Amino acid sequence: MVAAHRSCPGYVDEPFATLVAQYPGPEAYPPADFRVEWGPVFHRGRLDGSARVLVIGQDPATHEAISRRILVGEAGQRVQGLLARLGITSSYVMLNVYLYSVFGQAAGYRHVKDAGVVDYRHRWIDAVLLESEVTAVIALGTLAKRAFGLWEDSSPERTARAAELHIAAVRHPTYAEGSAMASGQPLEDTTAAQLADWSAQLPALSAAVRPEVTPNPKPYGTSWAEQDLVAIPEQDLPPGTPEWWRAVDAWAVRQGADAEEKRATIKVTVPKGARTWPPL
Amino acid sequence: MVAAHRSCPGYVDEPFATLVAQYPGPEAYPPADFRVEWGPVFHRGRLDGSARVLVIGQDPATHEAISRRILVGEAGQRVQGLLARLGITSSYVMLNVYLYSVFGQAAGYRHVKDAGVVDYRHRWIDAVLLESEVTAVIALGTLAKRAFGLWEDSSPERTARAAELHIAAVRHPTYAEGSAMASGQPLEDTTAAQLADWSAQLPALSAAVRPEVTPNPKPYGTSWAEQDLVAIPEQDLPPGTPEWWRAVDAWAVRQGADAEEKRATIKVTVPKGARTWPPL
Repeated sequence: MVAAHRSCPGYVDEPFATLVAQYPGPEAYPPADFRVEWGPVFHRGRLDGSARVLVIGQDPATHEAISRRILVGEAGQRVQGLLARLGITSSYVMLNVYLYSVFGQAAGYRHVKDAGVVDYRHRWIDAVLLESEVTAVIALGTLAKRAFGLWEDSSPERTARAAELHIAAVRHPTYAEGSAMASGQPLEDTTAAQLADWSAQLPALSAAVRPEVTPNPKPYGTSWAEQDLVAIPEQDLPPGTPEWWRAVDAWAVRQGADAEEKRATIKVTVPKGARTWPPL
Repeated sequence: MVAAHRSCPGYVDEPFATLVAQYPGPEAYPPADFRVEWGPVFHRGRLDGSARVLVIGQDPATHEAISRRILVGEAGQRVQGLLARLGITSSYVMLNVYLYSVFGQAAGYRHVKDAGVVDYRHRWIDAVLLESEVTAVIALGTLAKRAFGLWEDSSPERTARAAELHIAAVRHPTYAEGSAMASGQPLEDTTAAQLADWSAQLPALSAAVRPEVTPNPKPYGTSWAEQDLVAIPEQDLPPGTPEWWRAVDAWAVRQGADAEEKRATIKVTVPKGARTWPPL
């Protein structure tokens, strides 16, 4: 008997079947600011009501355009490690502020309040938060915090639901890299700052979440340790997708001789450690 | 109101949920002969019992490793065109002889009867053929014909079911290219031979299939005409996948400086006609 594989069943049940049928396109997401051409990527995690934590990220990155689930690349592995510290191994759901990958750094800030973006995002947040088991929301970065605030303030029902939740607005999982690039500070310093922020949030977050396994909310060090990154569970990706799509080694990169080609191209490469074939 | 998108719901219902949990790996598919590292690709089309035609292909090609549905590239577009001639626009289901992409031309012929390959394949054929509305099977190429024959001969129940069906064993949709490469014959000649074969099969096939729309079983010309290729329907791919993943222009290619890198790499490129962003 072969081992049983787990996989994400997708969007069959309502309201998700309707949501994935009605996603907005370029009329809401201008192609100058979003990589609409790669299609929307909706979520990762449980849609069956079993989620105890909602994670809100920003926008799908390179790997996610291929895997069709969000927070699968390095940022996702870091978040998975944060959830592991809370004793959460599968009872989570993740959404992004944006359905499409942001094109250009500044573009991300311009559209967080756009009606076409907000309306659809609110339907998703409703679907995973109202009448759910979620007790804590982890907002990754300032845009995610803002997006959750917009939802919270948009109706009395949503405000009341938000009041029941612990909201942890943490630094984005790749804050350190972005901040170092923008400010010229050493990456070691911005990494330490990010990890200090995550460490500071851990006690209250852990107290607000009913764990699935024994939690381990010990503070992070001043740099990423190997065990701080956790591979994406098999049950989070569609059936049959390769194991290395969920692993820590990077496997997708945008590539091109000029800006046009780079926007048009993603190179997918089996990492060396996953090349299980006999030497060629 | 945004337009409603259709998509493939995946493998939620039985027996498909169990089938995608129990797919064989390298113990049945030797990595020297199959690109096991890219994961299995199971099917394309209807799994809800509405299929009237079963198409059996050979193995997933480059595009299919990304789209995670079979017969999506040029071969798939040609098959979609053949189905269109029969008046079939959505009531079909497609399986392959192999779950994984064959590595090396000859390897495909070595494993069609392997027990681990056959057992799992037969479970899929059972799932889509026994107690179904299917009246015709289109086997693409000699391996597909052989695989269907193995199923047909493997039990009295299967033999009885096969006897109710029209079996059209046609040339593989990329027979012309493969044959020209192998034999040195001009591609024009092998294309004409392939299209003559398809044309000859059309009347009996059309008679055996209850069409969804008015059929048009006119013979093919001696070369591919534009309308002979038909784009893959939106409802055949997972939710949110880009439109150009279903279109006629190629968008995925294996690439690498040597055999190792080429096996490890697929480059995905938005075709020029689908680059809807403002000039960069």
